[in-house]
Amino acid sequence: MTAPIGVGVIGVGYWGPNLLRNFNNASGAEARWAADLDTGRLEHIKKLYPSVRTTQDYREMLADEGTDAVVIATPADTHCRLAVEAFEAGKHVFVEKPMAISEDECRQMVQASEKAGRKLMVGHTFLFNNAVHQIKQLIDSGELGDIYYVYVNRVNLGLFREDCNVVWDLAPHDIAILNWLLDSTPVSLTAVGHSYVQPDIEDVAFVNLQYPNKVMAHLHVSWLDPNKVRTITVVGSKKMLVYDDVSNTEKLRVYDKGVNVVMPHYDTFGEFQLSYRYGDIVLPRIEDSEPLRNEAEHFVDAILNDSTPRSDGHSGLEVVRTLEAACDSMREGGAARILGGASVGG
Amino acid sequence: MTAPIGVGVIGVGYWGPNLLRNFNNASGAEARWAADLDTGRLEHIKKLYPSVRTTQDYREMLADEGTDAVVIATPADTHCRLAVEAFEAGKHVFVEKPMAISEDECRQMVQASEKAGRKLMVGHTFLFNNAVHQIKQLIDSGELGDIYYVYVNRVNLGLFREDCNVVWDLAPHDIAILNWLLDSTPVSLTAVGHSYVQPDIEDVAFVNLQYPNKVMAHLHVSWLDPNKVRTITVVGSKKMLVYDDVSNTEKLRVYDKGVNVVMPHYDTFGEFQLSYRYGDIVLPRIEDSEPLRNEAEHFVDAILNDSTPRSDGHSGLEVVRTLEAACDSMREGGAARILGGASVGG
Amino acid sequence: MTAPIGVGVIGVGYWGPNLLRNFNNASGAEARWAADLDTGRLEHIKKLYPSVRTTQDYREMLADEGTDAVVIATPADTHCRLAVEAFEAGKHVFVEKPMAISEDECRQMVQASEKAGRKLMVGHTFLFNNAVHQIKQLIDSGELGDIYYVYVNRVNLGLFREDCNVVWDLAPHDIAILNWLLDSTPVSLTAVGHSYVQPDIEDVAFVNLQYPNKVMAHLHVSWLDPNKVRTITVVGSKKMLVYDDVSNTEKLRVYDKGVNVVMPHYDTFGEFQLSYRYGDIVLPRIEDSEPLRNEAEHFVDAILNDSTPRSDGHSGLEVVRTLEAACDSMREGGAARILGGASVGG
Amino acid sequence: MTAPIGVGVIGVGYWGPNLLRNFNNASGAEARWAADLDTGRLEHIKKLYPSVRTTQDYREMLADEGTDAVVIATPADTHCRLAVEAFEAGKHVFVEKPMAISEDECRQMVQASEKAGRKLMVGHTFLFNNAVHQIKQLIDSGELGDIYYVYVNRVNLGLFREDCNVVWDLAPHDIAILNWLLDSTPVSLTAVGHSYVQPDIEDVAFVNLQYPNKVMAHLHVSWLDPNKVRTITVVGSKKMLVYDDVSNTEKLRVYDKGVNVVMPHYDTFGEFQLSYRYGDIVLPRIEDSEPLRNEAEHFVDAILNDSTPRSDGHSGLEVVRTLEAACDSMREGGAARILGGASVGG
Repeated sequence: MTAPIGVGVIGVGYWGPNLLRNFNNASGAEARWAADLDTGRLEHIKKLYPSVRTTQDYREMLADEGTDAVVIATPADTHCRLAVEAFEAGKHVFVEKPMAISEDECRQMVQASEKAGRKLMVGHTFLFNNAVHQIKQLIDSGELGDIYYVYVNRVNLGLFREDCNVVWDLAPHDIAILNWLLDSTPVSLTAVGHSYVQPDIEDVAFVNLQYPNKVMAHLHVSWLDPNKVRTITVVGSKKMLVYDDVSNTEKLRVYDKGVNVVMPHYDTFGEFQLSYRYGDIVLPRIEDSEPLRNEAEHFVDAILNDSTPRSDGHSGLEVVRTLEAACDSMREGGAARILGGASVGG
Repeated sequence: MTAPIGVGVIGVGYWGPNLLRNFNNASGAEARWAADLDTGRLEHIKKLYPSVRTTQDYREMLADEGTDAVVIATPADTHCRLAVEAFEAGKHVFVEKPMAISEDECRQMVQASEKAGRKLMVGHTFLFNNAVHQIKQLIDSGELGDIYYVYVNRVNLGLFREDCNVVWDLAPHDIAILNWLLDSTPVSLTAVGHSYVQPDIEDVAFVNLQYPNKVMAHLHVSWLDPNKVRTITVVGSKKMLVYDDVSNTEKLRVYDKGVNVVMPHYDTFGEFQLSYRYGDIVLPRIEDSEPLRNEAEHFVDAILNDSTPRSDGHSGLEVVRTLEAACDSMREGGAARILGGASVGG
Repeated sequence: MTAPIGVGVIGVGYWGPNLLRNFNNASGAEARWAADLDTGRLEHIKKLYPSVRTTQDYREMLADEGTDAVVIATPADTHCRLAVEAFEAGKHVFVEKPMAISEDECRQMVQASEKAGRKLMVGHTFLFNNAVHQIKQLIDSGELGDIYYVYVNRVNLGLFREDCNVVWDLAPHDIAILNWLLDSTPVSLTAVGHSYVQPDIEDVAFVNLQYPNKVMAHLHVSWLDPNKVRTITVVGSKKMLVYDDVSNTEKLRVYDKGVNVVMPHYDTFGEFQLSYRYGDIVLPRIEDSEPLRNEAEHFVDAILNDSTPRSDGHSGLEVVRTLEAACDSMREGGAARILGGASVGG
Repeated sequence: MTAPIGVGVIGVGYWGPNLLRNFNNASGAEARWAADLDTGRLEHIKKLYPSVRTTQDYREMLADEGTDAVVIATPADTHCRLAVEAFEAGKHVFVEKPMAISEDECRQMVQASEKAGRKLMVGHTFLFNNAVHQIKQLIDSGELGDIYYVYVNRVNLGLFREDCNVVWDLAPHDIAILNWLLDSTPVSLTAVGHSYVQPDIEDVAFVNLQYPNKVMAHLHVSWLDPNKVRTITVVGSKKMLVYDDVSNTEKLRVYDKGVNVVMPHYDTFGEFQLSYRYGDIVLPRIEDSEPLRNEAEHFVDAILNDSTPRSDGHSGLEVVRTLEAACDSMREGGAARILGGASVGG
């Protein structure tokens, strides 16, 4: 029997304690270190987890041979530096989303990971969410038919951030989900947005993503909306679905609806014959399980079994690349940006 | 006492009979003629309105001195020709939306109207809808504060058309509403869309409209959606509202919600302080009244009182100009199109 | 080929014209007569159906040999007299709900029908409604398991009637549905209610019906409610369902939910072990079809094929008997009334 | 400055820890003791609140002079004995709902409280809930007009209890709310219910309560329902409201709806003229605050200021009396039970 993976968390302010708790509960791992500049936060952690060592200097954590993996939950502009340093110390790295603040930084992180031969995983939690998994199965099994387009509404009132705009705050979730569901990355995009409340920090944005094979995706992200909405609508040639993350009991609705195209005979001048299909709606039961817990265990498994995490550095990089392009487009009044994406399998 | 305005309707297939009924009921007017190429339709009208004269040749209607006004409910590509001919015969013209199929045609219609000194009105029904009127009052009274942005969802499954795409089918409503609510026309736009079911006829589109003063509008129109949705969300600096045209009893919700920006004192380095306001939600009672009836009476009033209709030729032209630009942008992969719009008052 | 069944309608005020239209459209039948004391109503019918003969004296209709069947849509207190007279004239009779205003009157009608050898059917429309049919199938197929209890909410604001209370106005629908769904009639009942707006005319009532085999049903009927609600909830041992008649698109929801009882082993003192089952929710597609049309054709079929209508005189009588008992109980402060009902099969 | 009220909690299994936490946080009080037979529960409390003394023998807590008040969160059949013993030791008592298992026990508790000159309060949490307070204000201010009737739906799937039926489990909340809102207690009641899952433990019940002045209340409580519903509908002569405790953001809806009765002139034979009023719907903002915290502070205030708690022994007794009568009625097939209630003021 092997010793558990020793995990150290850098940054235990807002989100880090959730990660620490879940890595501590993950089978095969134990929380070993917490690093933060704020001693108040460290004391709080110490009270909850007396056996976890705390430090204001994360280098102490990196120097400990018992630390196998480092979890980075600090502001995004420190991710790259901390991750590279951790790889150089021979640690596996789990980094919160967004992976970093530029494609270039992401590339450095991937290279450092490969050079060190250590795992790199990005905290795209929704890839470990049961409802999203069910959608993935519905797509992959062909039940929805060909995917036509997907649109996402992720809006509510607040919380405004001062360190990044609404695209960097909310869209990483959706781009990660889309890339995974569609097994591809965007070919091009256009985006528009505005900053209404704080100068130069966009609080509303509409992003159009063009995927391969004519698949279109659209994101509406906003901190300025009367209602909290988190929906993803997937329109396929055979069925359609709506995923409502706000609902407690009815997260997924699968509609047996569609348009059937009857091709005209070759020797007639007939036009396309369309028939509409309105069938049952099914709300499959989604098992409860904490996505963060699934995510933590996935990372531990990747280390133990030397497998590639679902949200590895390459996928995290693609998300950041898309975020950067969206912001560029937005600042150029919606000019199209080419990303050159492709099907992942292709 | 004057004789009632004699009204003739050209095209009594799908929508024309509704117009005929409402013009017949409008005070100060009476339905006098119905023209259609299909004799079956004419017989149907004759049975419902025995006193209405029917003809396969609309010129007969135009030649009748008792015809004061002509209502055109034929396919959009015939609007211009018929309207110009009617003006030349000295008639007032009410034309269904879209006004025509190009800005150029619209211009010819406006010129013919001005030359003849006769009224030209476009059937943008939503400008005669009580809920939309209430929104207009909420905006104009300042109750919503500065308008930040507006977004519209007009989606459902079907009905696919073969003669125009989803933008020409559904967006005229929304552009007319937006231009009227915002008292301005778009400065520029970008649009993306695809044709999934019928070749070359877009069935899904996302259109971003930039209005003066940083006001942004966004349209999602689709024939390919699992749900029927018709909502308009208006986000202001003081309040927000959602108009749900599908609901029978709760069409309008006004949210006393917003973000208050507290400006920092000049002598501190403080950042913007934001506070969120979550107040009551009010669902004002909307009086029932048929928009089409209001619209018909508005046209009759414009004739009788020599006033300018709310949806006159100029406003109809602006809608068509925007539709054309949206389709251009859509076919160029979302390239921005300058429209140069401005506040109507300015 | 036989001549169509000639149908005469007595009472063409509010509801009668719907019946006339549907009997006219039913295959195998044709509307032949309309009788009403109000000549204005008769003129209206004449305009819509020029071939229908109209009269102020229904006896003229009864005297016509071409009249095979009479549809009675007059106030409830005239049903018995008119039906008996029609049977005596050798006509089949379709009578609107409630069948009459007392069990005794119903009995006279049944006897007259039997004596004349003519069909008697009561207009319990919901027995010809597709959603209710689907519920019946779900129950009869065993998919819901044993039926535990059913409750009905039929409430809204208005319309207050002056000729009967809310129980006689709204509950006939539900009692007819329940008796049919449960294949039985109530064993006993209790009811409470009050008249808040008009003296002595109850506008709110709660009725508890006890069916055989411990099946319980509960009705809440009201003219005094902020919302329009029409729901029927059926709780079975295996599945549960909610029928929402107000919804246009989601009328039926079938919940794969329940409580499993694990019986303890005989040799332990264990208590019942319960486990909760939360499965999928299915919203089956309900085909659109007008219940009134189905109802009219059912009556015509019963005549043509000499079969017993689903809502025959016996079933109509049971509904009236239950309504009478409910009102008695209500006026005695909720005292239990024995009805002695039983399973229809038994 | 006085020393804080020392509070001891008897029973720290399921609900007791919430009470302990809230009394510990209430200003003017501190948690001093926790008693439980289960040493595991005591250790758990000790870890969370190191300064709280723990004991398996509550008599130790009662013997401590520093214990001013005792909170009883044990099974209902022990409430009376423990409360009386606490009063005899000179303590104030807060007891969870239901106050006891019979009216007789409640009377003993009230007498012991009065003899000892100590406060007795029952944990009817909803009387300390902000939404319920807003309803109380709407009623007392006359905004709703005369109250006609109230109905409550408190249903869901599970949790089945083995120690009491669904009436004792769920109805105490609603009876306490109703008595408080209506400032009166029931005059009489009828109730029906059945035990479908566990023998002899009713899992579904319908209870009709008759209050003074013709005000009617109706409860539907169930452990066997496909949906979780917690609504209270209040119908007044001027306005109506629905309180939905399951909704996070829209708990209260106030409908400006009603029926206006126009009395006929004395010299006409006219019947009542009714007109329906359909006005705005308002969803007032409900401030978030934990009812349990409000409740704990209310008890501490009552001790400090020698005032009568809102939910004192008399009100707790009335709830239990009504529960007993409801169960009696239920077992007698819905027979009416006289309670003789009256307006509290009268």
